[in-house]
Amino acid sequence: MYYPEPIAKLIEGFTKLPGIGPKTATRLAFFVLKMEEEDVLDLGKALVNAKRDLLFCSQCQNITDTDPCYLCNDKARDASCICVVQEPKDLIAMERTREFQGAYHVLHGAISPMEGIGPEDIRLPELLKRLQDEQVQELILATNPNIEGEATAMYISRLVKPFGIRVTRIAHGLPVGGDLEYADEVTLTKALEGRREL
Amino acid sequence: MYYPEPIAKLIEGFTKLPGIGPKTATRLAFFVLKMEEEDVLDLGKALVNAKRDLLFCSQCQNITDTDPCYLCNDKARDASCICVVQEPKDLIAMERTREFQGAYHVLHGAISPMEGIGPEDIRLPELLKRLQDEQVQELILATNPNIEGEATAMYISRLVKPFGIRVTRIAHGLPVGGDLEYADEVTLTKALEGRREL
Repeated sequence: MYYPEPIAKLIEGFTKLPGIGPKTATRLAFFVLKMEEEDVLDLGKALVNAKRDLLFCSQCQNITDTDPCYLCNDKARDASCICVVQEPKDLIAMERTREFQGAYHVLHGAISPMEGIGPEDIRLPELLKRLQDEQVQELILATNPNIEGEATAMYISRLVKPFGIRVTRIAHGLPVGGDLEYADEVTLTKALEGRREL
Repeated sequence: MYYPEPIAKLIEGFTKLPGIGPKTATRLAFFVLKMEEEDVLDLGKALVNAKRDLLFCSQCQNITDTDPCYLCNDKARDASCICVVQEPKDLIAMERTREFQGAYHVLHGAISPMEGIGPEDIRLPELLKRLQDEQVQELILATNPNIEGEATAMYISRLVKPFGIRVTRIAHGLPVGGDLEYADEVTLTKALEGRREL
């Protein structure tokens, strides 16, 4: 190798991250050499701490550094309504709306027979256990509006029916600020189906 | 913030790297949570070590973990011919050709009045010192073929003339495998100017 070992190792480490090939990794590594030592130490520590200190909330399965997480601990939130999302990022997206005051359940994935991901590979058993233990009245399925997300929502709704719980799916339609002209047919069809009285 | 602190810190750390905004940083951070713990520790260590263990070679100014670097230490290389490059990455690019058997000098930048980078802000004094101390016969200027690189090459050539050393500039022209049709006018003009007998 042409690079001194410390930088070669850093380049190798960066290439393990998604979307970062050898060229970007090299660029990042040389940037690190020019960064303030304090910032580099902070990033190094943050990496190790994120991996070591984070765990999954025993209730909603969201990533957290306390158990239960701050959302499950919040008595002001309505635990009788659970919003089911695929990833922690989706939960954050929901929280940003400041509209939803209920609880969450993070699946960490969606059912995908193509990728060999079945109902047991995501946090569905944990959801069923919550439905048995807790007083849940509504389940809002907020999985992604793609094939895997729809299949997962459908699967959950059938599974939960026997519990006598209300199961709803978030609406499909045109995104706000979008353009009718550029909307795809499926979205437009869904928007038409879901039309409401004004 | 909505994210638990360890992950928020990691996202903040990633955004300090070039070309990584908040969205990419979030994606990387969540990827880190799913990585093998060993790989994360390796990356963390590599970051800190690269920053701590690397130094500049006292002769060629290249980054290295030994001083002098492995190139300056190599007795098989011709120390009387110095190839001047802007960045360590450029040195690596030269080495990949396996054609050049001389020594190097890394400037760590180029003269750029626009950005307030003068001759003293790059490793030019170190180059002059080498020209005084060592038996140098040829200086190959391999700075980048852009405004800053050309200006730097021109500056060095005028500076070095009094030493009675041969100063050459790497050739401009069409890249091999390139397409005449898509070449810009300046490159084509340079290619024409630099034509050689067959």
